[in-house]
Amino acid sequence: MDLNAYLAARRQEVDAALERHLPRAEEQPARLHTAMRYSLLAGGKRLRPILCLASAEAVGGGREAALLPALALECLHTYTLIHDDLPAMDDDDLRRGLPTCHKKFDEATAILAGDALLTLAFELLARATPAAQLVLELAEAAGSRGVVGGQAEDLAAEGRAPDAELLEFIHTNKTGKLLRAACRMGALTAGADAGQLAALTTYAAKIGLAFQIADDVLNVTSTPQQLGKAVGSDAARKKMTYVALYGLETARAKAAALIVEAQAALKPLGTPAAPLVALAEFTVRRSS
Amino acid sequence: MDLNAYLAARRQEVDAALERHLPRAEEQPARLHTAMRYSLLAGGKRLRPILCLASAEAVGGGREAALLPALALECLHTYTLIHDDLPAMDDDDLRRGLPTCHKKFDEATAILAGDALLTLAFELLARATPAAQLVLELAEAAGSRGVVGGQAEDLAAEGRAPDAELLEFIHTNKTGKLLRAACRMGALTAGADAGQLAALTTYAAKIGLAFQIADDVLNVTSTPQQLGKAVGSDAARKKMTYVALYGLETARAKAAALIVEAQAALKPLGTPAAPLVALAEFTVRRSS
Repeated sequence: MDLNAYLAARRQEVDAALERHLPRAEEQPARLHTAMRYSLLAGGKRLRPILCLASAEAVGGGREAALLPALALECLHTYTLIHDDLPAMDDDDLRRGLPTCHKKFDEATAILAGDALLTLAFELLARATPAAQLVLELAEAAGSRGVVGGQAEDLAAEGRAPDAELLEFIHTNKTGKLLRAACRMGALTAGADAGQLAALTTYAAKIGLAFQIADDVLNVTSTPQQLGKAVGSDAARKKMTYVALYGLETARAKAAALIVEAQAALKPLGTPAAPLVALAEFTVRRSS
Repeated sequence: MDLNAYLAARRQEVDAALERHLPRAEEQPARLHTAMRYSLLAGGKRLRPILCLASAEAVGGGREAALLPALALECLHTYTLIHDDLPAMDDDDLRRGLPTCHKKFDEATAILAGDALLTLAFELLARATPAAQLVLELAEAAGSRGVVGGQAEDLAAEGRAPDAELLEFIHTNKTGKLLRAACRMGALTAGADAGQLAALTTYAAKIGLAFQIADDVLNVTSTPQQLGKAVGSDAARKKMTYVALYGLETARAKAAALIVEAQAALKPLGTPAAPLVALAEFTVRRSS
């Protein structure tokens, strides 16, 4: 399949729907709504919403029922980026090739824009079906036992000696849980059975780890132009990364092996899973 | 009725349930979970959860079904306090008589603890019934068209000339919407009909405004010991308040009138609404 054409079409679909579901920039409080739109509509791969849509299709459903959950995932992901970039956290000035939210606006606005996007994610899910299951899936993935917990340990691990167990905790939670939720949420909207859900969960766990390893690799090997954000920042901040722990070559080999395993997990789903098979490679080949 | 005994009993009920539903302090990431517990279990009036429980009873339901939504409201309320206290926002050092979260821990931990509590609120709601309606109610009350929007305009209004319309926007959103959600969510768990829901919504709007006026008054007339936080800070930060706009006496009279109107709105509900009638006076008589 033509992955680039597929990605472009889905991205357009997601962007158009986000545009419709976000408060308009003029609506009071205008600065807050402008900031929310700025960070959410700044581009980005839309990987999580696309995984959600593709997972619905992979188990025989349509994309329509998965659209609100897909948007919720992107709102939630964008809030994590805004908060992670704050001076008290990773202190980054550049994101997706543009000034980060607190640089473009101010810290208070960035904190509030993140809070509002996190809340909006659950508002969108409340309008989807099956709402309760979807909310639970996203909340568990995003909270102190998920993304927020991963970021907390990531910050705490700066400067500490490499530790394989801790690194796995960070990666699984900070990145993996949300990709897992993306696949499972899409499948839930399509009424997936337990076997289908299990296949997608395995797939997501593998690409989640591969994605994070690729991120660590790119932070060393890429340029700011390719990445749209600072490079070499992991080493500068003494971050615990796969590259720091295992070296560049071993990290690359590990990511490649995970992709093969992820694709194998999709076998039982057959042809409708073709976009997910292709997307697995995208998670490590991406340059931004 | 003996309001103080009623409040003490409900508070104990809420505190015990919070204790059960929060991640333990030792669970990884321990510093994050410790911070969440520190801010959530630091005391507080538990006004929102108690309004939720009392509203369920006021329409003929039991408290049990309203318990998870009640906890969700307190998690959400506590997250707003943690984020509002941050240096980039209101920059407060003291809350409920204790160091604020970022003072006790650090800014990154405070931001993440707030994020995690906001997320936990929706996780708790996903386990309640009717989950979708409850999530929608809370998300709408809490987002950029609710609490977050009110805080954004509150910050933006500092130092500006008093403006009655803007002040109403701030108060309605920053404080009123969550009290409104508390009453409506409790009633929803008890299967309230449209008339009962309308009565509670009117009640909540009135006490919400009275509560905020009382807050403005207390910031001028109280002591740090009574309030558990700094006093006079509104004037120092040139906050737009009811007192600044109308003067102390007019503000007090307005609050008193609102309480009478709030109580009148409950007439159709009869005896089961007795705790809510008493709670209305509490919202303006409280000293902390």
